[in-house]
Amino acid sequence: MVKGASISGFPEWLPSEKAVEQRVCDTLRTIFELNGFIGIETRAVETGASLLKKGETSKEIYLLSRLQEVGRESDTPIEDRLGLHFDLTVPLSRYVVENAGSLTFPFKRWQIQKVWRGERPQEGRFREFVQADIDVIGQNELPDHYEVELPLVMVSALEKLREFGLPAATVHANNRKLSEGFYRGIGLEDIEGVLHQIDKIDKIGPEEVSRLLKEECGASDSQAEACLKLAGIQSSDSKELVETAEALADEYGIDKTCEARELMNQGLRTLSMIVEKAALIRPESIIADLKIARGLDYYTGSVYETFLEGAQSLGSVCSGGRYDKLASKGSRTYPGVGLSIGMSRLVSYMLHSSSARPARVSPASVLVAVWNEEDRSRSDRIADDLRKRSIACDVAPSAAKLGKQIKYADKLGIPYVWFPGENGESDEVKNIITGEQETADADSWLPEEKYASNKIIFG
Amino acid sequence: MVKGASISGFPEWLPSEKAVEQRVCDTLRTIFELNGFIGIETRAVETGASLLKKGETSKEIYLLSRLQEVGRESDTPIEDRLGLHFDLTVPLSRYVVENAGSLTFPFKRWQIQKVWRGERPQEGRFREFVQADIDVIGQNELPDHYEVELPLVMVSALEKLREFGLPAATVHANNRKLSEGFYRGIGLEDIEGVLHQIDKIDKIGPEEVSRLLKEECGASDSQAEACLKLAGIQSSDSKELVETAEALADEYGIDKTCEARELMNQGLRTLSMIVEKAALIRPESIIADLKIARGLDYYTGSVYETFLEGAQSLGSVCSGGRYDKLASKGSRTYPGVGLSIGMSRLVSYMLHSSSARPARVSPASVLVAVWNEEDRSRSDRIADDLRKRSIACDVAPSAAKLGKQIKYADKLGIPYVWFPGENGESDEVKNIITGEQETADADSWLPEEKYASNKIIFG
Repeated sequence: MVKGASISGFPEWLPSEKAVEQRVCDTLRTIFELNGFIGIETRAVETGASLLKKGETSKEIYLLSRLQEVGRESDTPIEDRLGLHFDLTVPLSRYVVENAGSLTFPFKRWQIQKVWRGERPQEGRFREFVQADIDVIGQNELPDHYEVELPLVMVSALEKLREFGLPAATVHANNRKLSEGFYRGIGLEDIEGVLHQIDKIDKIGPEEVSRLLKEECGASDSQAEACLKLAGIQSSDSKELVETAEALADEYGIDKTCEARELMNQGLRTLSMIVEKAALIRPESIIADLKIARGLDYYTGSVYETFLEGAQSLGSVCSGGRYDKLASKGSRTYPGVGLSIGMSRLVSYMLHSSSARPARVSPASVLVAVWNEEDRSRSDRIADDLRKRSIACDVAPSAAKLGKQIKYADKLGIPYVWFPGENGESDEVKNIITGEQETADADSWLPEEKYASNKIIFG
Repeated sequence: MVKGASISGFPEWLPSEKAVEQRVCDTLRTIFELNGFIGIETRAVETGASLLKKGETSKEIYLLSRLQEVGRESDTPIEDRLGLHFDLTVPLSRYVVENAGSLTFPFKRWQIQKVWRGERPQEGRFREFVQADIDVIGQNELPDHYEVELPLVMVSALEKLREFGLPAATVHANNRKLSEGFYRGIGLEDIEGVLHQIDKIDKIGPEEVSRLLKEECGASDSQAEACLKLAGIQSSDSKELVETAEALADEYGIDKTCEARELMNQGLRTLSMIVEKAALIRPESIIADLKIARGLDYYTGSVYETFLEGAQSLGSVCSGGRYDKLASKGSRTYPGVGLSIGMSRLVSYMLHSSSARPARVSPASVLVAVWNEEDRSRSDRIADDLRKRSIACDVAPSAAKLGKQIKYADKLGIPYVWFPGENGESDEVKNIITGEQETADADSWLPEEKYASNKIIFG
């Protein structure tokens, strides 16, 4: 990253770093489209009314004002002001409701865009970053098979990024209904409060969470213990998952016929379906992990977080869930399932922990030398001939000494320097990495496969 | 465009429109990289101090404030506040100065990003749009051959977009030194004022401009006449250009040895070089047009505007110029040449005037049918097999009646529906556009070339 971003929280990449981000972005898009997701882009702004409706981060937004309005910003109520979006889910919901008549449901879409969080500047926190999202939105109904398909698409996308140095990723899934049913079954009422505390287990540890459950959510010792035991369940086997969860519910005396138990079982059925189907297609890619809570209040069913092997401290790099009540219009509802990759954080990790980098800074694989400025048009024509055959190339900035021209290519990582033939002699091309030089014709020469495309390497 | 964007000036595309924009973006990037330009991305914000330094639009900016600061926005001086960038040139200059030590000069970069103009809402004006820029930045010096190379790269990019329905484009070039030398030579002093009026010729006509030159810039009848005659010169022949301009200077008595004439000649030499070289490589792609002025005050040499055949009223779709004084640090200067395509406007034109559209809304070329939910995993496996061979596909949302599944494919423009074989029979695949149906194996079947990729069509 550009050393000490000149505005804290607004990272900028150097060209070679940007090349990695670009490749990550292209790879994700390719996988999303391979799976039939349709690309959209929403405007960067939403109304204050729309931004302030939902979500834990809703208070960390940037509001806009035109320069001409400075000093009179407060004349406009916040709901009517424009603010930068803080995620891509709220804009998607608004877009779907506005354009429902032109869309085909279920609507599967991908979206890769910048989002902004109007946080106080803090070390290591991004205030501008890129998210890569997939969601599927139904009209009035949405089959639950999407709750396993979408995380599996993300798994295959993250798997593909291992080619650029990303460690293996595992999706940890839970279900809000399962948690809520269990909590209600043991007599707790402040469900959001309990989820909020459970969400902190990895950060502050179970003992501290137990204390908070008792102090903040009115849990008894036994209730707190039960919550932590539930949160401790982790399984990649659907049968084991169901048995363990059922046994725990029985242990704490949750009546098999009560409403709470039925809610819990609904969640458990979906979660075990996810684990079972995922195991069939990509073993060990999705595990049930009952401490996953997700702070955002709009999730109503499955919730997901994704962790990288050996990078637990990075936190979740791909999160999401099912939300049945985010969008509606009249009697129509638009339930959805979606996951979001924190692309900037992922790229940052790949750059710093895996040393991901492009083979060269310049996209060009050839630099055409210029003997003297009067002959530049000859070099230009050679470059043009190469480009016609899709060989990216550059022409030397000036007819400087040859050593200087080669140094320019070298600094940009351009592997070949092309020498236009003088006095009727043939052109020659030199691979400045291997030192090999050969005669060449701009109408037929091809770079060695290894040097043709600009590969991302790592390690 | 989404009918009546829900926030005026912030356009959003429907999925099929976004597909066109995406293809335009990909095409531009490909051409830029083919020519050795390096991609970068800058943060969306700059400081008020940086945004308010230069440029005609500098006053049309959006400032940001954190929600927590509402009511106290004015505690922070505007220079220290953050604002959204209104172009990609000011951010580039800042980026280059900040990272000069890590870059290789001349630094050729492409950048495609959103920009924002904090304008009062008006019919048909975008307040958020995408620009596609190429610039080359030198350190202390920058050879003038870039002043013909960069517009030629844009010409080849726009030429490529004709495949998607864009009309032919012609770059109109002028040179600030030529104009300034001529104006000074005939005794005018308010150079910026004169350029500002000349810039209006296409909008308000020469007579009105003549009146303004006299009223606002202190020009005499003869001086106003001379300015309009100069602005009337248009030529695609370098020799004719030089002769006509020289003859006009002589006609108005500009001394061949004075400083003003030397300045004029400098500009004329560069402009004739551009016309001459362009004629060699792409005849008629760049013409000299001496009424091109460009409002922005940072241009110091060549200026360019680009017009589409039959779409003069659209105005310039690709503009730029040479700027020698935009960035400096200590004794180092960073002269540049750059052009910017107004991508949103271009795409808008392609959508509405050329009816550019993708062959299908979904990126998938195959929809795998599902006979019943219990068999979904079989359809999933078929889809997975196809994807392994890079065939984009989707699986039916539900095991609805076959007609409904086919209708879903049809609405998304997916050409093939795949029927998993029942009772040990072979799978079959149907092209729902032609009606042809054949047995198929997910490990080897290929779509017809015509239906394999999602082409952009028009007309």
